[in-house]
Amino acid sequence: MTNQGYQSPQVDVAGLTRVLDGPYAEVRSMVRDGLVEHAGLLDEALELDRPAYRQRVLEVVLAMAEDGHTGLGFPKEYGGADDVGASMAAFETLGLGDLSVMTKVGVQFGLFGGAILHLGSKEHHDAYLPDLISGKLLGCFAMTETGHGSNVQELGTVARFDVKTGEFVIHTPDDAARKDYIGNAAQHARTAVVFAQLEIGGESEGVHAFVVPLRDETGEPLPGVRIEDCGPKIGLNGVDNGRIWFDQVRVPRTALLNRYADVSETGVYSSPIESRGRRFFTMLGTLVQGRVAVGGAGINASKVAITIAVKYALQRRQFAASDPATEELLLDYGMHQRRLLPLLARTYAMHFAQEVLAADLHRVFTDPDAPEEERRALESRAAGTKALGTWHAAETIQECREACGGAGYMAANRFAALRADTDVFTTFEGDNHILLQLVAKGLLTDYSSDFADLDQFGMMRFVAGVAVETVIERTSVHKLLERIRDVLPGGNDDTWDNDAGLLDPDYHLMMLRWREEHMLAGVARRLKRGMDDGMDPGVVFSRCQDHVIATARAHVERIVLESFVDKLATLEDGPNKDALNLLCDLYALSVIESDRAWWMEHGRLTTQRAKAITREIGDLCRKVRPIAGDLVDALAVPAPLRRTEMLAD
Amino acid sequence: MTNQGYQSPQVDVAGLTRVLDGPYAEVRSMVRDGLVEHAGLLDEALELDRPAYRQRVLEVVLAMAEDGHTGLGFPKEYGGADDVGASMAAFETLGLGDLSVMTKVGVQFGLFGGAILHLGSKEHHDAYLPDLISGKLLGCFAMTETGHGSNVQELGTVARFDVKTGEFVIHTPDDAARKDYIGNAAQHARTAVVFAQLEIGGESEGVHAFVVPLRDETGEPLPGVRIEDCGPKIGLNGVDNGRIWFDQVRVPRTALLNRYADVSETGVYSSPIESRGRRFFTMLGTLVQGRVAVGGAGINASKVAITIAVKYALQRRQFAASDPATEELLLDYGMHQRRLLPLLARTYAMHFAQEVLAADLHRVFTDPDAPEEERRALESRAAGTKALGTWHAAETIQECREACGGAGYMAANRFAALRADTDVFTTFEGDNHILLQLVAKGLLTDYSSDFADLDQFGMMRFVAGVAVETVIERTSVHKLLERIRDVLPGGNDDTWDNDAGLLDPDYHLMMLRWREEHMLAGVARRLKRGMDDGMDPGVVFSRCQDHVIATARAHVERIVLESFVDKLATLEDGPNKDALNLLCDLYALSVIESDRAWWMEHGRLTTQRAKAITREIGDLCRKVRPIAGDLVDALAVPAPLRRTEMLAD
Repeated sequence: MTNQGYQSPQVDVAGLTRVLDGPYAEVRSMVRDGLVEHAGLLDEALELDRPAYRQRVLEVVLAMAEDGHTGLGFPKEYGGADDVGASMAAFETLGLGDLSVMTKVGVQFGLFGGAILHLGSKEHHDAYLPDLISGKLLGCFAMTETGHGSNVQELGTVARFDVKTGEFVIHTPDDAARKDYIGNAAQHARTAVVFAQLEIGGESEGVHAFVVPLRDETGEPLPGVRIEDCGPKIGLNGVDNGRIWFDQVRVPRTALLNRYADVSETGVYSSPIESRGRRFFTMLGTLVQGRVAVGGAGINASKVAITIAVKYALQRRQFAASDPATEELLLDYGMHQRRLLPLLARTYAMHFAQEVLAADLHRVFTDPDAPEEERRALESRAAGTKALGTWHAAETIQECREACGGAGYMAANRFAALRADTDVFTTFEGDNHILLQLVAKGLLTDYSSDFADLDQFGMMRFVAGVAVETVIERTSVHKLLERIRDVLPGGNDDTWDNDAGLLDPDYHLMMLRWREEHMLAGVARRLKRGMDDGMDPGVVFSRCQDHVIATARAHVERIVLESFVDKLATLEDGPNKDALNLLCDLYALSVIESDRAWWMEHGRLTTQRAKAITREIGDLCRKVRPIAGDLVDALAVPAPLRRTEMLAD
Repeated sequence: MTNQGYQSPQVDVAGLTRVLDGPYAEVRSMVRDGLVEHAGLLDEALELDRPAYRQRVLEVVLAMAEDGHTGLGFPKEYGGADDVGASMAAFETLGLGDLSVMTKVGVQFGLFGGAILHLGSKEHHDAYLPDLISGKLLGCFAMTETGHGSNVQELGTVARFDVKTGEFVIHTPDDAARKDYIGNAAQHARTAVVFAQLEIGGESEGVHAFVVPLRDETGEPLPGVRIEDCGPKIGLNGVDNGRIWFDQVRVPRTALLNRYADVSETGVYSSPIESRGRRFFTMLGTLVQGRVAVGGAGINASKVAITIAVKYALQRRQFAASDPATEELLLDYGMHQRRLLPLLARTYAMHFAQEVLAADLHRVFTDPDAPEEERRALESRAAGTKALGTWHAAETIQECREACGGAGYMAANRFAALRADTDVFTTFEGDNHILLQLVAKGLLTDYSSDFADLDQFGMMRFVAGVAVETVIERTSVHKLLERIRDVLPGGNDDTWDNDAGLLDPDYHLMMLRWREEHMLAGVARRLKRGMDDGMDPGVVFSRCQDHVIATARAHVERIVLESFVDKLATLEDGPNKDALNLLCDLYALSVIESDRAWWMEHGRLTTQRAKAITREIGDLCRKVRPIAGDLVDALAVPAPLRRTEMLAD
């Protein structure tokens, strides 16, 4: 079924796995072994009731903590390995297994532990980290409220400083301000990091984080704390999500995680960061690893799905086409190739993009002097990769499920859990649309620290704020137009896209860069024009919002492609590089094909060339077809984790 | 936030519901009331374990049978109402409630009952229908096997006629031939309609249906029958799906459902239909209502999702944009409108398409003399509407879930069940891709009865068969080209699309028709060319497969739009018609926008006009925004069925 005369490269599967595993091969391998050890949970989860499933997930999390799989990012003196990169590699790899385990690890060690580590000072580290890392102290991260998910600056929970007793009084003023969907809260957390509006002498100082005990030794809620179970969810039912109300709960002054702001005994507020907005976003910025982690876990979950679906398609026969006596393998059908192989290519692309992101995270987090622009660029990359990585997971798992027909619907075949569990990835740790707005804001402001106190979780403030005109005037339009001229020396002339070959990575990158820059300049102009015309800023933003989000997506697709191309440049020539080149071309052309209308509308793609791209994708699928089995094997999903009754091996 | 100076129509909600309910308003209303009566099940389902949930679903099904909601399509003399249309309206409406109930009703009364009714003769009707309709006799429909889902003609189960005893011997030769995913089989069915290869004296006569008892009065499997529970599934866990093996199970000669073929006591096979293929597809064709039903249920399930998401977006505020003191309603954000309102428009469009399909079904099924072409056209329309209706459900439910953020992930808010339960709709009652191939085959052969014995479940045989060249030669290319000339008197000239207004339904229809005809002619040419070049038919088909499926999709999108336009033509002028016109325009332009690259590539859309379409969609969304609440209210999802803790009312 392949193209005439074409010989697909002879993939060295183990070598390709080494390329994918990268610098953390040992860590990844250790976690994979751990997941195999606990693979029985995948079966048990099908039959256990919710309380029992939660209990088993807790046991597995504690066992992995004991084995040292979950604390690699913490300082050595508290039992960690002081290695953020290793910690991310370990966490991502958990995405291959039961995702309630992954999520509970994320809540305990990433969110709860990360808040103590990054927002607290030595006193907090000494007090909490050892027990937290060992799993002896279980905690939760109480940020989201029923009334406020994305717009965290407007949280309703209050932490009033009582100067008489030197205590903070944590209080939930109304039901909209109850903490909601909080992982670990319904049953297991003894302590919470609570985000609340700090009030001193009637003045509000904005949102800060406090360590608040929730339960006594027996697990009973402490006085003033009310907890409700969120009950069953679409997925992740091994995690105990809950709601929390605080009724005038008193905690000592030291409960404030005071790395970025403190309150003296006499009630004087101080902070090394003057701007309230920047202070808030600096605090939130330290929690960026949660997004990096979720995106990585999603990408790894999609590896499981694509592996199962490709292997099934290499085994399942349906209808006779060429030979009346033999039915065809599913993967020999063009439509089936079209459905699965571009997703396989994108899984590789997202993997390499995630590798770059994790390396950035490691670099910035181990360099106390990393400039603020770099931190912002990291946050933006994390937001964008998380959004595209989790959407990729949702789409891939769904398509793979459908490509396996009725067998895919049976819970025994893993898609049920993969699909249900990853579903919330697109909205938790930041709703994907809101995250793409954050990416767009970074692009529009060029990550300038001048704009650090603009709301990072949306463009609303940015647009509505008084600074908007000057922002656009000063930073966006002119710079962008200059940048576009840099990228495209030929300016507007149409010749370049007719010269380059369809499989030239420079052509792919040029196309993706041009789209991004053009969209960005267009958004900036539209925002500015709307404001100049005196339109209501909400209306201006509302009308441009899809354009804003499309711009961010274009940006992330470009950096994903760059990650893949950069990775290829580091590899020695040989069959594995040839195989990855096929996947990279398939990824790039699939991106262009899916938005080809845009390039045509903007004069960057002729209709003839657009059709040629579609044909080329068909050719690439046929070239990938003979090595598809090897390419999924290289993803190194251990057999017990792709356990399915529908696969022969 | 609406367009300046534009006044949205004042919708009469009750009147619009009457338009939607159409001729079966009473039936729909009766079923809605029934669902409200049993709405408690929606809560219970969240906490019940699988056995208890199955039991409750059974109870509700039996209660609805007793209330006469489930048997409307059966003859009056057996307790039915002899009204296929009413039966479909009732069944579709079940899509608003618990979907395990809907599925179990479908299995019992649609599949099991439908097989007895349509494939059996009076003897079978007398023996089974009264108890079947009352729910006293529970049954299942044992067609699918582990090894064969879509390719039913190649089923492995054998029914050998033993002339000595005058019995059929039903046997499962190997595990690939076990019956699989069979609803009602794991627990409740006492009897099955089993599809098996009829063998007489060593000769195979093809697949036929037999009534085979499965269990005794106590529920124990009968000798020779082995049943296994399929266990947990992604959704529909209130339905007991099972696997069945038969070990030389003997049934009397009368067990053959003999409307279309019979075996005499002496083992002589006879049938009024000479061609084996046509006989087989005639039998299958009588079961078309299963597809009509599933598509309709999917469309109704999407009504629940879009209603919840729109209502939530009219209540939930997020970020301040226009006024620092007040956060905006979600539905005032452009992106949110873009995400939800085209799906609302498509929900209406699919509803009206389903109405036409159900009317066709009613007409054909009540006319014993309906010509074969009409039956084939019905099957094709059913296949296409099922495919697009169930994909619409999957997409709508997912987008609505995400648009409700974390709240949408909580099982208490209905999305969990909607999403999980409808997931399999895209692959059961015919995999959607296979169904679209069936649609394409109908188009390519013009529903000619000459090709009735080509495999309806795929194009493989059609392509591989010896008749392919003549098929294309005789029927396709020339006729299609003529038809294209009829539709487009201007031929290839480009002027017509610049003259018509963007909101002119004739323009929309012209665009959709032109795409369909052009694609169809292209596919026919490619198939023929491949065969002329002596390529392997499997390769030819594989390479064209995405083109084939895209053609079918284009066809179905066209007939969906026609249904909407035709419906509008029957309505009196007024605000409700104005409102529906907005939705119809939004549907049509969304279809064109999403495939605009194709029209540009084929010279039917200028890039300027493509951009204008995108702008117009934004305008339409803003025009629909003020009446979005009314438009979902008119869908008449009873409040207890959109029960969510996240909605205020």
